[in-house]
Amino acid sequence: MYTLHHHPACPYSRKVRLLMAEKGMDFTLVTEEPWKYRPEFLALNPANELPVLEEPDGHVLCGHRSICEYIDETTSRPLFGSYAHDRAEVRRLCDWFDDKFYKEVSVYLIEEKLMKRIIGGGAPDSDAIRAGKANILGHLSYSEWLLKQRKWLAGEALSMADLAFAAHLSVLDYIGEVPWDKTEDGEPLFEETKNWYARVKSRPSFRPLLADRIQGTVPSSCYADLDF
Amino acid sequence: MYTLHHHPACPYSRKVRLLMAEKGMDFTLVTEEPWKYRPEFLALNPANELPVLEEPDGHVLCGHRSICEYIDETTSRPLFGSYAHDRAEVRRLCDWFDDKFYKEVSVYLIEEKLMKRIIGGGAPDSDAIRAGKANILGHLSYSEWLLKQRKWLAGEALSMADLAFAAHLSVLDYIGEVPWDKTEDGEPLFEETKNWYARVKSRPSFRPLLADRIQGTVPSSCYADLDF
Repeated sequence: MYTLHHHPACPYSRKVRLLMAEKGMDFTLVTEEPWKYRPEFLALNPANELPVLEEPDGHVLCGHRSICEYIDETTSRPLFGSYAHDRAEVRRLCDWFDDKFYKEVSVYLIEEKLMKRIIGGGAPDSDAIRAGKANILGHLSYSEWLLKQRKWLAGEALSMADLAFAAHLSVLDYIGEVPWDKTEDGEPLFEETKNWYARVKSRPSFRPLLADRIQGTVPSSCYADLDF
Repeated sequence: MYTLHHHPACPYSRKVRLLMAEKGMDFTLVTEEPWKYRPEFLALNPANELPVLEEPDGHVLCGHRSICEYIDETTSRPLFGSYAHDRAEVRRLCDWFDDKFYKEVSVYLIEEKLMKRIIGGGAPDSDAIRAGKANILGHLSYSEWLLKQRKWLAGEALSMADLAFAAHLSVLDYIGEVPWDKTEDGEPLFEETKNWYARVKSRPSFRPLLADRIQGTVPSSCYADLDF
Protein backbone atom coordinates (compact mmCIF):
# COMPACT_ATOMS: atom_id res chain seq x y z
CA MET A 1 0.00 0.00 0.00
CA TYR A 2 1.26 3.47 -0.92
CA THR A 3 1.03 6.40 1.49
CA LEU A 4 0.57 9.90 0.14
CA HIS A 5 1.30 12.81 2.46
CA HIS A 6 -0.99 15.58 1.26
CA HIS A 7 -3.20 18.50 2.18
CA PRO A 8 -6.64 19.06 0.62
CA ALA A 9 -5.80 22.73 -0.08
CA CYS A 10 -2.62 21.79 -1.98
CA PRO A 11 -3.18 21.59 -5.76
CA TYR A 12 0.01 19.57 -6.25
CA SER A 13 -1.20 16.91 -3.83
CA ARG A 14 -4.52 16.83 -5.68
CA LYS A 15 -2.69 16.34 -8.96
CA VAL A 16 -0.89 13.27 -7.61
CA ARG A 17 -4.14 11.90 -6.12
CA LEU A 18 -5.83 12.22 -9.53
CA LEU A 19 -2.92 10.49 -11.24
CA MET A 20 -2.81 7.62 -8.73
CA ALA A 21 -6.56 7.13 -9.02
CA GLU A 22 -6.37 7.17 -12.84
CA LYS A 23 -3.68 4.52 -12.61
CA GLY A 24 -5.81 2.42 -10.25
CA MET A 25 -3.21 2.56 -7.47
CA ASP A 26 -4.24 1.75 -3.93
CA PHE A 27 -3.11 4.41 -1.46
CA THR A 28 -3.74 5.86 1.98
CA LEU A 29 -3.83 9.61 2.55
CA VAL A 30 -2.04 11.24 5.48
CA THR A 31 -2.78 14.92 6.00
CA GLU A 32 0.27 17.09 6.61
CA GLU A 33 0.37 20.77 7.58
CA PRO A 34 3.79 21.88 6.28
CA TRP A 35 3.53 25.26 8.01
CA LYS A 36 4.07 23.39 11.28
CA TYR A 37 7.58 22.32 10.16
CA ARG A 38 7.26 18.95 11.88
CA PRO A 39 10.67 17.28 12.29
CA GLU A 40 9.16 13.93 11.22
CA PHE A 41 7.98 15.46 7.95
CA LEU A 42 11.24 17.33 7.38
CA ALA A 43 13.02 14.00 7.75
CA LEU A 44 10.89 12.68 4.87
CA ASN A 45 11.31 15.78 2.71
CA PRO A 46 13.97 18.37 3.62
CA ALA A 47 12.20 20.80 1.25
CA ASN A 48 9.20 20.61 3.64
CA GLU A 49 6.85 20.52 0.66
CA LEU A 50 3.84 18.44 -0.28
CA PRO A 51 3.18 15.94 -1.72
CA VAL A 52 5.43 13.11 -0.50
CA LEU A 53 4.86 9.53 -1.62
CA GLU A 54 5.95 6.52 0.43
CA GLU A 55 6.15 3.29 -1.51
CA PRO A 56 5.13 -0.04 0.05
CA ASP A 57 8.84 -0.91 0.53
CA GLY A 58 9.44 2.36 2.42
CA HIS A 59 11.15 4.22 -0.45
CA VAL A 60 10.27 7.93 -0.25
CA LEU A 61 9.60 10.14 -3.28
CA CYS A 62 9.42 13.93 -2.99
CA GLY A 63 8.35 16.65 -5.38
CA HIS A 64 5.13 16.65 -7.38
CA ARG A 65 6.85 16.46 -10.79
CA SER A 66 9.26 13.78 -9.75
CA ILE A 67 6.42 11.71 -8.26
CA CYS A 68 4.18 12.06 -11.33
CA GLU A 69 6.96 11.16 -13.77
CA TYR A 70 7.92 8.19 -11.61
CA ILE A 71 4.36 6.89 -11.43
CA ASP A 72 3.85 7.32 -15.15
CA GLU A 73 7.13 5.56 -15.96
CA THR A 74 6.46 2.59 -13.73
CA THR A 75 2.81 1.92 -14.65
CA SER A 76 0.93 1.16 -17.84
CA ARG A 77 -1.15 3.57 -19.99
CA PRO A 78 1.18 6.60 -20.14
CA LEU A 79 -0.38 9.94 -19.26
CA PHE A 80 2.62 11.96 -20.40
CA GLY A 81 2.11 10.85 -24.01
CA SER A 82 3.66 8.12 -26.11
CA TYR A 83 6.09 10.11 -28.27
CA ALA A 84 8.83 12.57 -27.35
CA HIS A 85 7.10 15.57 -28.98
CA ASP A 86 3.82 14.72 -27.27
CA ARG A 87 5.57 14.46 -23.92
CA ALA A 88 7.24 17.83 -24.51
CA GLU A 89 3.81 19.40 -25.04
CA VAL A 90 2.31 17.67 -21.98
CA ARG A 91 5.24 18.82 -19.82
CA ARG A 92 5.13 22.37 -21.23
CA LEU A 93 1.46 22.61 -20.22
CA CYS A 94 1.95 20.94 -16.82
CA ASP A 95 4.59 23.58 -16.07
CA TRP A 96 2.29 26.30 -17.39
CA PHE A 97 -0.34 25.34 -14.79
CA ASP A 98 2.03 24.26 -12.01
CA ASP A 99 4.28 27.32 -12.27
CA LYS A 100 2.72 30.15 -14.22
CA PHE A 101 -0.94 29.66 -13.28
CA TYR A 102 0.01 28.96 -9.68
CA LYS A 103 2.21 32.07 -9.44
CA GLU A 104 -0.22 34.40 -11.22
CA VAL A 105 -3.55 33.11 -9.91
CA SER A 106 -3.62 30.37 -7.26
CA VAL A 107 -1.06 31.80 -4.88
CA TYR A 108 -3.10 35.00 -4.50
CA LEU A 109 -6.52 33.41 -4.13
CA ILE A 110 -5.53 30.33 -2.14
CA GLU A 111 -3.27 32.23 0.26
CA GLU A 112 -5.74 35.03 0.89
CA LYS A 113 -9.05 33.18 0.89
CA LEU A 114 -8.08 29.77 2.24
CA MET A 115 -4.70 29.62 3.96
CA LYS A 116 -5.18 32.76 6.05
CA ARG A 117 -8.26 31.10 7.57
CA ILE A 118 -6.28 27.96 8.34
CA ILE A 119 -2.94 29.37 9.42
CA GLY A 120 -3.88 32.92 10.34
CA GLY A 121 -1.90 35.90 9.10
CA GLY A 122 -4.47 38.65 9.25
CA ALA A 123 -7.25 39.86 6.99
CA PRO A 124 -7.22 38.91 3.31
CA ASP A 125 -5.35 41.41 1.11
CA SER A 126 -7.93 42.75 -1.32
CA ASP A 127 -5.27 43.84 -3.85
CA ALA A 128 -3.93 40.29 -4.01
CA ILE A 129 -7.42 38.88 -4.47
CA ARG A 130 -8.11 41.41 -7.23
CA ALA A 131 -4.87 40.39 -8.98
CA GLY A 132 -5.79 36.68 -8.84
CA LYS A 133 -9.32 37.36 -10.13
CA ALA A 134 -7.96 39.43 -13.02
CA ASN A 135 -5.17 37.00 -13.94
CA ILE A 136 -7.38 33.91 -14.09
CA LEU A 137 -9.22 35.41 -17.07
CA GLY A 138 -6.09 35.36 -19.25
CA HIS A 139 -5.37 31.75 -18.33
CA LEU A 140 -8.95 30.65 -19.05
CA SER A 141 -8.72 32.39 -22.41
CA TYR A 142 -5.62 30.31 -23.10
CA SER A 143 -7.35 27.05 -22.15
CA GLU A 144 -10.29 28.11 -24.36
CA TRP A 145 -7.91 28.61 -27.25
CA LEU A 146 -6.29 25.21 -26.69
CA LEU A 147 -9.61 23.39 -26.30
CA LYS A 148 -11.00 24.87 -29.51
CA GLN A 149 -8.25 22.98 -31.32
CA ARG A 150 -8.00 19.82 -29.22
CA LYS A 151 -10.30 17.52 -27.32
CA TRP A 152 -8.01 17.58 -24.26
CA LEU A 153 -5.50 20.23 -23.23
CA ALA A 154 -2.40 18.64 -24.75
CA GLY A 155 -4.00 16.72 -27.63
CA GLU A 156 -6.64 14.15 -28.51
CA ALA A 157 -6.21 12.06 -25.35
CA LEU A 158 -6.46 12.78 -21.64
CA SER A 159 -2.99 13.58 -20.28
CA MET A 160 -1.15 14.74 -17.19
CA ALA A 161 -1.78 18.32 -18.37
CA ASP A 162 -5.52 17.83 -17.85
CA LEU A 163 -4.97 16.42 -14.37
CA ALA A 164 -2.63 19.31 -13.50
CA PHE A 165 -5.01 22.08 -14.59
CA ALA A 166 -8.05 20.33 -13.10
CA ALA A 167 -6.21 19.93 -9.78
CA HIS A 168 -5.40 23.64 -9.66
CA LEU A 169 -8.91 24.66 -10.73
CA SER A 170 -10.50 22.33 -8.19
CA VAL A 171 -8.98 24.24 -5.25
CA LEU A 172 -10.15 27.55 -6.72
CA ASP A 173 -13.57 26.04 -7.43
CA TYR A 174 -13.80 25.04 -3.76
CA ILE A 175 -13.64 28.71 -2.83
CA GLY A 176 -15.91 29.74 -5.70
CA GLU A 177 -13.15 31.53 -7.60
CA VAL A 178 -13.51 30.01 -11.05
CA PRO A 179 -15.66 32.35 -13.17
CA TRP A 180 -18.17 29.89 -14.59
CA ASP A 181 -20.42 32.91 -15.28
CA LYS A 182 -22.60 33.19 -18.33
CA THR A 183 -22.52 35.95 -20.92
CA GLU A 184 -25.61 38.03 -21.72
CA ASP A 185 -26.56 35.36 -24.31
CA GLY A 186 -26.75 32.77 -21.54
CA GLU A 187 -23.63 30.96 -22.79
CA PRO A 188 -20.78 30.20 -20.40
CA LEU A 189 -18.02 32.80 -20.59
CA PHE A 190 -15.43 30.04 -21.01
CA GLU A 191 -17.57 27.39 -22.64
CA GLU A 192 -14.88 24.99 -23.88
CA THR A 193 -13.10 25.05 -20.52
CA LYS A 194 -16.36 24.53 -18.64
CA ASN A 195 -17.24 21.53 -20.79
CA TRP A 196 -13.73 20.14 -20.43
CA TYR A 197 -13.80 20.61 -16.63
CA ALA A 198 -17.21 18.90 -16.46
CA ARG A 199 -15.69 15.92 -18.33
CA VAL A 200 -12.71 15.70 -15.95
CA LYS A 201 -14.88 16.26 -12.89
CA SER A 202 -17.14 13.34 -13.90
CA ARG A 203 -14.27 10.85 -13.92
CA PRO A 204 -14.21 8.35 -11.04
CA SER A 205 -10.67 9.57 -10.16
CA PHE A 206 -12.15 12.98 -9.29
CA ARG A 207 -14.77 11.72 -6.85
CA PRO A 208 -12.58 11.67 -3.71
CA LEU A 209 -11.57 15.31 -4.36
CA LEU A 210 -15.22 16.36 -4.45
CA ALA A 211 -15.67 14.84 -0.99
CA ASP A 212 -12.76 16.91 0.43
CA ARG A 213 -13.56 19.39 3.14
CA ILE A 214 -10.99 22.03 4.07
CA GLN A 215 -10.87 23.18 7.66
CA GLY A 216 -12.67 26.48 8.26
CA THR A 217 -14.13 26.86 4.77
CA VAL A 218 -17.36 25.48 3.34
CA PRO A 219 -17.07 24.56 -0.37
CA SER A 220 -18.87 26.70 -2.94
CA SER A 221 -22.29 25.47 -4.02
CA CYS A 222 -20.98 24.36 -7.43
CA TYR A 223 -17.92 22.53 -6.07
CA ALA A 224 -19.32 19.00 -5.94
CA ASP A 225 -22.04 19.59 -8.54
CA LEU A 226 -21.31 17.70 -11.77
CA ASP A 227 -23.87 19.84 -13.59
CA PHE A 228 -22.50 23.22 -12.47
CA MET B 1 21.15 23.09 -36.76
CA TYR B 2 19.23 23.85 -33.54
CA THR B 3 18.49 27.41 -32.43
CA LEU B 4 18.30 28.21 -28.74
CA HIS B 5 16.64 31.46 -27.71
CA HIS B 6 18.37 32.43 -24.49
CA HIS B 7 19.73 35.22 -22.32
CA PRO B 8 23.12 35.01 -20.57
CA ALA B 9 21.56 36.15 -17.27
CA CYS B 10 18.93 33.36 -17.40
CA PRO B 11 19.99 30.28 -15.39
CA TYR B 12 17.43 28.09 -17.17
CA SER B 13 18.91 28.98 -20.56
CA ARG B 14 22.36 28.17 -19.19
CA LYS B 15 21.11 24.79 -18.01
CA VAL B 16 19.91 23.90 -21.50
CA ARG B 17 23.17 25.17 -23.05
CA LEU B 18 25.15 22.91 -20.71
CA LEU B 19 22.95 19.93 -21.54
CA MET B 20 23.18 20.49 -25.30
CA ALA B 21 26.96 20.86 -25.08
CA GLU B 22 27.24 17.69 -22.95
CA LYS B 23 25.22 15.90 -25.61
CA GLY B 24 27.45 17.24 -28.39
CA MET B 25 24.57 19.01 -30.12
CA ASP B 26 25.31 21.74 -32.63
CA PHE B 27 23.31 24.90 -31.93
CA THR B 28 23.15 28.62 -32.55
CA LEU B 29 22.30 31.06 -29.77
CA VAL B 30 19.86 33.90 -30.28
CA THR B 31 19.66 36.41 -27.43
CA GLU B 32 16.15 37.34 -26.36
CA GLU B 33 15.11 40.03 -23.89
CA PRO B 34 11.71 38.77 -22.67
CA TRP B 35 10.98 41.99 -20.80
CA LYS B 36 10.47 43.60 -24.23
CA TYR B 37 7.47 41.31 -24.93
CA ARG B 38 8.33 41.06 -28.62
CA PRO B 39 5.35 39.74 -30.63
CA GLU B 40 7.71 37.47 -32.63
CA PHE B 41 8.91 35.84 -29.40
CA LEU B 42 5.40 35.60 -27.95
CA ALA B 43 4.40 33.77 -31.12
CA LEU B 44 7.12 31.20 -30.34
CA ASN B 45 6.26 30.95 -26.64
CA PRO B 46 3.00 32.43 -25.36
CA ALA B 47 4.44 32.14 -21.81
CA ASN B 48 7.09 34.70 -22.92
CA GLU B 49 9.75 32.73 -21.07
CA LEU B 50 13.25 31.56 -21.86
CA PRO B 51 14.63 29.23 -23.07
CA VAL B 52 12.96 28.24 -26.35
CA LEU B 53 14.47 25.60 -28.61
CA GLU B 54 13.84 25.49 -32.36
CA GLU B 55 14.64 22.16 -33.97
CA PRO B 56 16.18 21.95 -37.44
CA ASP B 57 12.74 21.05 -38.88
CA GLY B 58 11.16 24.16 -37.32
CA HIS B 59 9.48 22.37 -34.40
CA VAL B 60 9.43 24.66 -31.34
CA LEU B 61 9.95 23.46 -27.76
CA CYS B 62 9.22 25.71 -24.78
CA GLY B 63 9.94 25.41 -21.09
CA HIS B 64 13.29 24.49 -19.58
CA ARG B 65 12.09 21.20 -18.08
CA SER B 66 10.24 20.11 -21.15
CA ILE B 67 13.28 20.91 -23.33
CA CYS B 68 15.73 19.07 -21.07
CA GLU B 69 13.58 15.96 -20.80
CA TYR B 70 13.05 15.98 -24.57
CA ILE B 71 16.77 16.27 -25.30
CA ASP B 72 17.61 13.55 -22.82
CA GLU B 73 14.95 11.21 -24.23
CA THR B 74 16.01 11.65 -27.83
CA THR B 75 19.79 11.38 -27.41
CA SER B 76 22.18 8.79 -26.04
CA ARG B 77 23.91 8.75 -22.61
CA PRO B 78 20.99 9.66 -20.33
CA LEU B 79 21.62 12.49 -17.86
CA PHE B 80 18.39 11.91 -15.94
CA GLY B 81 19.59 8.48 -14.81
CA SER B 82 18.98 4.97 -16.06
CA TYR B 83 16.45 3.68 -13.53
CA ALA B 84 13.12 5.08 -12.35
CA HIS B 85 14.31 5.69 -8.76
CA ASP B 86 17.47 7.41 -10.01
CA ARG B 87 15.42 9.62 -12.31
CA ALA B 88 13.10 10.51 -9.40
CA GLU B 89 16.13 11.67 -7.39
CA VAL B 90 17.58 13.64 -10.32
CA ARG B 91 14.23 15.34 -10.93
CA ARG B 92 13.72 16.05 -7.22
CA LEU B 93 17.06 17.84 -7.11
CA CYS B 94 16.55 19.66 -10.43
CA ASP B 95 13.32 21.05 -9.01
CA TRP B 96 15.08 21.90 -5.75
CA PHE B 97 17.51 24.14 -7.65
CA ASP B 98 15.13 25.33 -10.38
CA ASP B 99 12.29 26.20 -8.00
CA LYS B 100 13.39 26.42 -4.38
CA PHE B 101 16.93 27.76 -4.86
CA TYR B 102 15.72 30.15 -7.55
CA LYS B 103 12.85 31.46 -5.40
CA GLU B 104 14.87 31.76 -2.18
CA VAL B 105 18.23 32.93 -3.56
CA SER B 106 18.60 33.71 -7.28
CA VAL B 107 15.52 35.82 -7.74
CA TYR B 108 16.71 38.26 -5.07
CA LEU B 109 20.33 38.52 -6.15
CA ILE B 110 19.83 38.33 -9.92
CA GLU B 111 16.92 40.77 -9.95
CA GLU B 112 18.58 43.31 -7.69
CA LYS B 113 22.20 43.11 -8.81
CA LEU B 114 21.87 42.23 -12.49
CA MET B 115 18.44 42.81 -13.99
CA LYS B 116 17.91 46.26 -12.50
CA ARG B 117 21.07 47.36 -14.32
CA ILE B 118 19.80 45.91 -17.58
CA ILE B 119 16.10 46.78 -17.44
CA GLY B 120 16.08 49.58 -14.89
CA GLY B 121 13.65 49.63 -11.99
CA GLY B 122 15.47 51.79 -9.48
CA ALA B 123 18.15 51.19 -6.90
CA PRO B 124 18.80 47.66 -5.66
CA ASP B 125 16.70 46.71 -2.63
CA SER B 126 19.19 46.00 0.16
CA ASP B 127 16.68 43.88 2.12
CA ALA B 128 16.21 41.60 -0.87
CA ILE B 129 19.97 41.28 -1.35
CA ARG B 130 20.39 40.48 2.34
CA ALA B 131 17.72 37.77 2.07
CA GLY B 132 19.45 36.18 -0.93
CA LYS B 133 22.85 36.27 0.77
CA ALA B 134 21.43 34.65 3.91
CA ASN B 135 19.40 32.00 2.07
CA ILE B 136 22.25 30.78 -0.12
CA LEU B 137 24.04 29.51 2.99
CA GLY B 138 21.32 26.97 3.77
CA HIS B 139 21.33 25.71 0.19
CA LEU B 140 25.12 25.35 0.13
CA SER B 141 24.93 23.43 3.40
CA TYR B 142 22.50 21.09 1.68
CA SER B 143 24.81 20.57 -1.32
CA GLU B 144 27.68 19.96 1.14
CA TRP B 145 25.60 17.30 2.86
CA LEU B 146 24.74 15.63 -0.46
CA LEU B 147 28.32 15.77 -1.75
CA LYS B 148 29.72 14.22 1.40
CA GLN B 149 27.72 11.10 0.52
CA ARG B 150 27.95 11.15 -3.26
CA LYS B 151 30.46 12.05 -5.94
CA TRP B 152 27.87 14.06 -7.86
CA LEU B 153 24.70 15.71 -6.56
CA ALA B 154 22.27 12.92 -7.41
CA GLY B 155 24.60 9.93 -7.20
CA GLU B 156 27.85 8.47 -8.51
CA ALA B 157 27.53 9.89 -12.03
CA LEU B 158 27.13 13.38 -13.45
CA SER B 159 23.43 14.12 -13.98
CA MET B 160 21.01 16.83 -14.95
CA ALA B 161 20.94 17.88 -11.27
CA ASP B 162 24.62 18.90 -11.51
CA LEU B 163 23.97 20.91 -14.66
CA ALA B 164 20.95 22.58 -13.06
CA PHE B 165 22.74 23.68 -9.88
CA ALA B 166 25.90 24.69 -11.77
CA ALA B 167 23.80 26.79 -14.16
CA HIS B 168 22.15 28.63 -11.26
CA LEU B 169 25.44 29.08 -9.40
CA SER B 170 27.20 30.35 -12.53
CA VAL B 171 24.93 33.40 -12.77
CA LEU B 172 25.49 34.18 -9.10
CA ASP B 173 29.22 33.58 -9.53
CA TYR B 174 29.21 36.13 -12.36
CA ILE B 175 28.10 38.78 -9.87
CA GLY B 176 30.42 37.46 -7.15
CA GLU B 177 27.57 36.20 -4.98
CA VAL B 178 28.70 32.65 -4.25
CA PRO B 179 30.48 32.60 -0.88
CA TRP B 180 33.66 30.74 -1.82
CA ASP B 181 35.21 32.25 1.32
CA LYS B 182 37.63 30.39 3.51
CA THR B 183 37.22 29.68 7.19
CA GLU B 184 39.80 30.81 9.75
CA ASP B 185 41.67 27.54 9.11
CA GLY B 186 42.12 28.49 5.47
CA GLU B 187 39.68 25.81 4.29
CA PRO B 188 36.81 26.69 1.96
CA LEU B 189 33.59 27.27 3.87
CA PHE B 190 31.78 24.90 1.51
CA GLU B 191 34.64 22.68 0.49
CA GLU B 192 32.75 19.80 -1.13
CA THR B 193 30.61 22.17 -3.15
CA LYS B 194 33.64 24.21 -4.22
CA ASN B 195 35.46 21.08 -5.39
CA TRP B 196 32.33 19.87 -7.17
CA TYR B 197 31.81 23.24 -8.88
CA ALA B 198 35.48 23.27 -9.96
CA ARG B 199 34.93 19.85 -11.57
CA VAL B 200 31.80 20.99 -13.43
CA LYS B 201 33.41 24.31 -14.41
CA SER B 202 36.37 22.48 -15.97
CA ARG B 203 34.18 20.52 -18.37
CA PRO B 204 34.32 21.58 -22.03
CA SER B 205 30.53 22.13 -21.94
CA PHE B 206 31.06 24.95 -19.45
CA ARG B 207 33.60 26.91 -21.50
CA PRO B 208 31.09 28.97 -23.54
CA LEU B 209 29.36 30.09 -20.31
CA LEU B 210 32.65 31.39 -18.94
CA ALA B 211 33.01 33.56 -22.05
CA ASP B 212 29.56 35.14 -21.48
CA ARG B 213 29.42 38.85 -20.86
CA ILE B 214 26.22 40.38 -19.51
CA GLN B 215 25.40 43.91 -20.57
CA GLY B 216 26.30 46.53 -17.97
CA THR B 217 28.05 44.17 -15.54
CA VAL B 218 31.67 43.03 -15.48
CA PRO B 219 32.06 39.44 -14.22
CA SER B 220 33.61 38.83 -10.81
CA SER B 221 37.34 38.09 -10.80
CA CYS B 222 36.76 34.40 -9.99
CA TYR B 223 34.06 33.88 -12.64
CA ALA B 224 36.20 32.47 -15.44
CA ASP B 225 39.00 31.25 -13.17
CA LEU B 226 39.14 27.45 -13.05
CA ASP B 227 41.34 27.66 -9.96
CA PHE B 228 39.09 30.04 -7.97
